[in-house]
Amino acid sequence: MKKFEEKTIKTEHIFSGKVLSLRVDDVELPNGKQSKRELIKHPGAVAVIAVTDENKIVMVEQYRKAMEQSLIEIPAGKLEPGEEPAVTAVRELEEETGYVSGKMEYLISFYTSPGFADEIVHLYIAEELKKKENAAPCDEDEFVEVMEITLEEALQYIREKRIYDVKTAYAVQYLQLKEALNKI
Amino acid sequence: MKKFEEKTIKTEHIFSGKVLSLRVDDVELPNGKQSKRELIKHPGAVAVIAVTDENKIVMVEQYRKAMEQSLIEIPAGKLEPGEEPAVTAVRELEEETGYVSGKMEYLISFYTSPGFADEIVHLYIAEELKKKENAAPCDEDEFVEVMEITLEEALQYIREKRIYDVKTAYAVQYLQLKEALNKI
Repeated sequence: MKKFEEKTIKTEHIFSGKVLSLRVDDVELPNGKQSKRELIKHPGAVAVIAVTDENKIVMVEQYRKAMEQSLIEIPAGKLEPGEEPAVTAVRELEEETGYVSGKMEYLISFYTSPGFADEIVHLYIAEELKKKENAAPCDEDEFVEVMEITLEEALQYIREKRIYDVKTAYAVQYLQLKEALNKI
Repeated sequence: MKKFEEKTIKTEHIFSGKVLSLRVDDVELPNGKQSKRELIKHPGAVAVIAVTDENKIVMVEQYRKAMEQSLIEIPAGKLEPGEEPAVTAVRELEEETGYVSGKMEYLISFYTSPGFADEIVHLYIAEELKKKENAAPCDEDEFVEVMEITLEEALQYIREKRIYDVKTAYAVQYLQLKEALNKI
């Protein structure tokens, strides 16, 4: 859909880094006036709701420099160039948690910050988890601590703002919905 | 929490715009090695799940330049400097939809892209909606079309990728959970 399309008049490339790039577009608005849009390009990412046979949710705690705090999140990671999201999901789950899944299913994809970035997250749910010996390690600049928590603990961590990002909040709410639907 | 803290060795300011700014930090990792972090600063935003007396969800369709497509989203907008999120929520609901709410409640806040940005969204739910005469208009570079849809239509729009952003997917799932809990 192209309703209210904003045509690009001029693009200024500001920055191109190892993760993201930034450009500023001069655009023509639907009423003929002009404005500027500051836009981030991102390779996209996957995230995995991994649930153990004991019905625990696998989470990873890691430091997030943008907020200067560590957060507890579901396992996630960026797409490598040309990599299928389903492949990234298997790789990131193994690298961050040491688990391989006997049953991984695609759930949904969503843009995280449509006002300024094209980052998309592809969300999967993984069950039938088994710890892998000699699992592939994390990237060399990644430090994560794995934990397995109940749904009730996840809700408590949301209240304490230790879980504080939207993909993990969505994942926890997804498991709440699943549990509620099972009771109807 | 500061687990696995990454200490800043050097900060390079790359860009400062009307919405966001970009810096690159050289950081010292927990193992003493160094890495770079590309980081976006954003003022934060609010979003509103607005539900009419007829149980319709109020949505706005708008063009999103980062994806070059129009998306259907819940009403949302950036915080002005020093503005309380609850004030922004009232303002954005009026500007984008023409509605004022007799009952607006805070739900949850979350970071949208913790890997590279500090954008936070504060989510509210608004009921007892009334159309306001002479409602404040949108920003002059904002063009939105208001629609009121059922939960079933929202789920269909998610399947069609017309609803495609995480705050709106979270909002729709929230209403699904509320409906399911009412049936238990």
